[in-house]
Parts: sequence; structure tokens; C-alpha cells
Amino acid sequence: MTAAPAAASTPEALTAILAQLRYTADGLIPAIAQQHDTGEVLMLAWMNRASIEETLQTGQVCYWSRSRQSFWRKGETSGQHQTLVEMRLDCDLDTLLLRVDQLGAACHTGRRDCFYRKVAGDKVIIDREPLVDPDTLYTH
Amino acid sequence: MTAAPAAASTPEALTAILAQLRYTADGLIPAIAQQHDTGEVLMLAWMNRASIEETLQTGQVCYWSRSRQSFWRKGETSGQHQTLVEMRLDCDLDTLLLRVDQLGAACHTGRRDCFYRKVAGDKVIIDREPLVDPDTLYTH
Repeated sequence: MTAAPAAASTPEALTAILAQLRYTADGLIPAIAQQHDTGEVLMLAWMNRASIEETLQTGQVCYWSRSRQSFWRKGETSGQHQTLVEMRLDCDLDTLLLRVDQLGAACHTGRRDCFYRKVAGDKVIIDREPLVDPDTLYTH
Repeated sequence: MTAAPAAASTPEALTAILAQLRYTADGLIPAIAQQHDTGEVLMLAWMNRASIEETLQTGQVCYWSRSRQSFWRKGETSGQHQTLVEMRLDCDLDTLLLRVDQLGAACHTGRRDCFYRKVAGDKVIIDREPLVDPDTLYTH
């Protein structure tokens, strides 16, 4: 008789897990944002440890912008805030799943989500229209 | 009066888009797998151009394994196949969304999905149990 599996559901300390995350050489980890109630996959962005901690503390999603090399507090300039509902970590500790409540458009194009291009045979089509004119998004 | 927006929905050639994808220095792009009908986010893995093309040709999802540096034909050794329903590309052309039909467990731990660790206050808990004993998964 083999031992019972080590209690898989023993809670682990968050700080220990955050230290074990498999960040890239740049200290980043990909985070998928999913609308918590509809299941829509909204976007993928990157976080570092500080942005993860800030997100957990404030309940407002904060990414790390690779292009700007700075915190990217979602909604700070667009008003389209992302409120954290639940944070999940994957089996390999190298991806985060953020279940969020997205106000309005998650995408900088003004669309609800970023995945509006669909492969259709040998073509790629756009099958979602903006909710918001992107020219009006960044006036905050 | 401004010109109408350039027809955003004009189909583009898939081969042109695949050449424009923003692969990492290693030639990879992250791909989110989502169960097409329930919306469950199953996993995140990586693809290269050849694995994208194979996936589109065969309709069976093929990733690129970073650890093994080889094609990873999902289900080839576990039997837990992932059939492609729809491939989507994001606004920045740096992430794929695969809407799939996952047979059984997507996760190597035997769980339906890889995101079974949930942040709960200052702890991380496991709140999903395996569907399949992982020891029996890799006998194919």
C-alpha cells in the first residue's frame, strides 16, 4: 500500500509561491485576463512580482508594460478598469490566470477583447467591432 | 468629414499575417487554449510558426515544447487530444487564442485545466482534483 498522496490541498504561503514563480529573465510572467462571469478571454499581458503584489493589494489589475518599461495600471488612462475577482496560478508556476470584471473595452482598439482576428481558411478576418472609439479612450 | 475607417474587416492573407506575428527571439508565441463551449481557460503553451501551420493543417493542436525543444502534439503520449475549433490572433499579433475541444484532462497532473491553484488571502490553495490519475496518463 502506498502512502496517501501528500495533501495536495494543503494551503501554501502566498509569499513562498510568489518567490517560486518562474519569471522570465526579465522578471516577467504572462497573465491571461478572463471575464469572470462570461468566460471571455480578454487579453494577455505581463506582470512582475511587484505588479502582482499591487494587484492583490488593491484589487485593481496592474500589469508591467514591456514597451514602456513601467507599471501599467489598467484603466488609469483609458478609464476601462479591470477589477480582480480571482487570481490563479498554473501547474508549472509560469502563467497567471486573472479572473476579472472588465469595465467596457479591454483592448486599446476599443474592442471588448483583443482576440478579434479569426483565422478563416487561408485568410484572417476581423469579426468584432469596437465598443468605444479608440480616439476617445485615452483622454483621461 | 473624415474618410470612412479603412475597411477593418478586409480579409488579410494568413501567410502574410503569420509572417507578421511578433515571435520571441526564440521564434515562439504564447497560445492560450480555451474550451470552445464552456469558456474554461485550459492552459497556456507556446507555438512556433511550424506548429501553428501544422495545427491549422491537421486540426489537432501542436505546440512547441520549450523544455524538450521539440513539437508537442497534444495528446500524442497522453491520449488527451486537443482538437482545434478556431484560432484567433490578438491586436498586437503577439498572442494566439485557440478555441479547442479538449478530450479529458488538459493538464499533465490529470486535471481538466492547469489553473488549479487559487490565491486565497495570504495562502494559495488547490481547489481542483485530477480527473485522471497522472500515473496512467503517459502510457500511450
